[in-house]
Amino acid sequence: MTPKIEAFLKDAETDNPFLVVDLDVVEDRYRQLHSSFEEAHIYYAMKANPAKPILERLNKLGSSFDAASLAEIQQCLDAGVTPDRISFGNTLKKKKDIKAAFDLGVDLFVFDCIDELEKIAEVAPGARVYCRILVNRHGAGASWPLSRKFGCSSSMAHELMVRAKALGLVPFGISFHVGSQQLDPAHWGKAIADVAVLFDALGELGITLKMVNIGGGFPARYQDDIPALDDFISFIKNHMKTSFGENWPEIYTEPGRYIVAEAGVLQSEVVCISIKDFAEEIRWVYLDVGKFGGLAETIDESIIYQIATDYDEGEMGPVIIAGPTCDSCDTLYERTFFQLPLDLKTGDRVRILSAGAYTTMYASQGFNGFTPPEEYFV
Amino acid sequence: MTPKIEAFLKDAETDNPFLVVDLDVVEDRYRQLHSSFEEAHIYYAMKANPAKPILERLNKLGSSFDAASLAEIQQCLDAGVTPDRISFGNTLKKKKDIKAAFDLGVDLFVFDCIDELEKIAEVAPGARVYCRILVNRHGAGASWPLSRKFGCSSSMAHELMVRAKALGLVPFGISFHVGSQQLDPAHWGKAIADVAVLFDALGELGITLKMVNIGGGFPARYQDDIPALDDFISFIKNHMKTSFGENWPEIYTEPGRYIVAEAGVLQSEVVCISIKDFAEEIRWVYLDVGKFGGLAETIDESIIYQIATDYDEGEMGPVIIAGPTCDSCDTLYERTFFQLPLDLKTGDRVRILSAGAYTTMYASQGFNGFTPPEEYFV
Repeated sequence: MTPKIEAFLKDAETDNPFLVVDLDVVEDRYRQLHSSFEEAHIYYAMKANPAKPILERLNKLGSSFDAASLAEIQQCLDAGVTPDRISFGNTLKKKKDIKAAFDLGVDLFVFDCIDELEKIAEVAPGARVYCRILVNRHGAGASWPLSRKFGCSSSMAHELMVRAKALGLVPFGISFHVGSQQLDPAHWGKAIADVAVLFDALGELGITLKMVNIGGGFPARYQDDIPALDDFISFIKNHMKTSFGENWPEIYTEPGRYIVAEAGVLQSEVVCISIKDFAEEIRWVYLDVGKFGGLAETIDESIIYQIATDYDEGEMGPVIIAGPTCDSCDTLYERTFFQLPLDLKTGDRVRILSAGAYTTMYASQGFNGFTPPEEYFV
Repeated sequence: MTPKIEAFLKDAETDNPFLVVDLDVVEDRYRQLHSSFEEAHIYYAMKANPAKPILERLNKLGSSFDAASLAEIQQCLDAGVTPDRISFGNTLKKKKDIKAAFDLGVDLFVFDCIDELEKIAEVAPGARVYCRILVNRHGAGASWPLSRKFGCSSSMAHELMVRAKALGLVPFGISFHVGSQQLDPAHWGKAIADVAVLFDALGELGITLKMVNIGGGFPARYQDDIPALDDFISFIKNHMKTSFGENWPEIYTEPGRYIVAEAGVLQSEVVCISIKDFAEEIRWVYLDVGKFGGLAETIDESIIYQIATDYDEGEMGPVIIAGPTCDSCDTLYERTFFQLPLDLKTGDRVRILSAGAYTTMYASQGFNGFTPPEEYFV
């Protein structure tokens, strides 16, 4: 926790769960990535957290933006971003939304199938397009795999790029995504090699691609240590050299979690602590925020958040952690061997660390009558 | 689909996904349950769908209400429900919310541990309390199991009821829940027998309980046929006779899904249809509503919705169905062998049937920039 967040939490008087984000951490992460990887254009994956103060800070730093919908594009524009720095980065777009985005000045669209390509050609004539290919199909190494749903095979991408040109679009590049919270740099290597093959094959047909979009996936620190950012970057650079020699295409990257996760702390309150029978040692700890209040990434216990309390120096014991709703699926950690202090009691406040990404916007609009956490910026 | 819903869908001009609810179906389900089970007091589990028109219709019919939070209690009151017909039915309540509910006139609270009981005793002196016991621990038979997170052992419930009396509360009854969308009536039998043992044991100590709350769990029809409601009710009545003889306690039941699921149809649009490679037969069908837009109960492919299209007479083929967000976990049916018409194409509208329960309120407030579905009532 940063001093600014600590100070904010000390003075906070609300009884409801809330997220507090230190914008300086956002800036720091952006600068760190930018300086480690000067060759890359950073497209912040705003779905991770599209709050206006975050967009404004990143815009001031010169970031570009990866938007998932027309609404997100509008949020970018509202934050002062110019449309030339927005990529419509969802392979799933309604035709009317493509048209509206194009009319707003957005000129860069992803696709992964003929259906999508034809929609773009129809309503965004002459736009730049990039094709997402399917890599790391089983999400190996990633805590939050992304791979099966998006992208097509390389051979199909090849066909589609030829088609894109025939349809009057600008075949601009190839993208892939190795999975969010990817802990193993090796996955980028294989994908970059696949992209290089496509660049060559299309080049022989007179289609010169200009950009490789290496996706996001750089991890944030939750409970466990993670490899250093530079490990990923130097690995990626080495593979770019191996695959492309000295003539690199433009590199786009779409970090989301990496930029904002560690900037946020979610304050929650212990609603209840119980055991189910006299003989049981494992306590159930119920928080006022759960799967439907922003912690959706605990589905399948994928993301293991660190939970800080006022008793972390004391003796610990095993717990099952659950949210406040009348839904059994709103249980956060049951298989994970989670420990919390024995002194923790009902009414205590706890801090869920690295909660700046994929929390507030995931929250249900009001399941069980609980509204999403408020969000504050320091 | 009812004629009123069909007429509404025919005229609907919006491009965004929406839910339309036929209030007459809500009324019909309420009346059906009420006439099959006259002995039972119906507490509508409003978390299933707390929309005001639904609450108002049920209020007019004489229903009582099971509220999961202070906000839901307020929604009841706003719909004209008197507080004597509201049960604060979440075992997880902040002390300040218990107090506020009690101050509003609510006098019936559930609990399942000493922590919660002491909170109630402190801020709602003299209130009626009922203890939830843990039954069907592994959720057998239920499509959406509810059992592990809530309730305590019978022996602990016994102790807690003695304690409740000592704390000046009114030990009023015992509740259990066999799991939502429970397809096997047998689970109620075992639970009722457990409750009867508790009634006897506490009676010997001079604590005369008055109520057994048999929870909800009655199924709605999705893709597959379900047993008739009367099968459940007659089974439950038989077991009440076996366990309690002729002197039944009051019976409370908390249907949610049963009352509203079949009353609602969610209209969605096909955003894209694709294959991942030339050789693949299975199409990916992407809808404009997914796990974060209201179909959260597709987690683990638990609830298999029926999806109606304009081509249902034509030839069918296997599909994977996914939602519109940039999140791979937003895939609805991948293991389920789902078929949709070969003629289905991008831009077509589809109707997701029996979508009146556990949809709109589950929807994320804006993940990927997509707002929750609108809700209409006919």
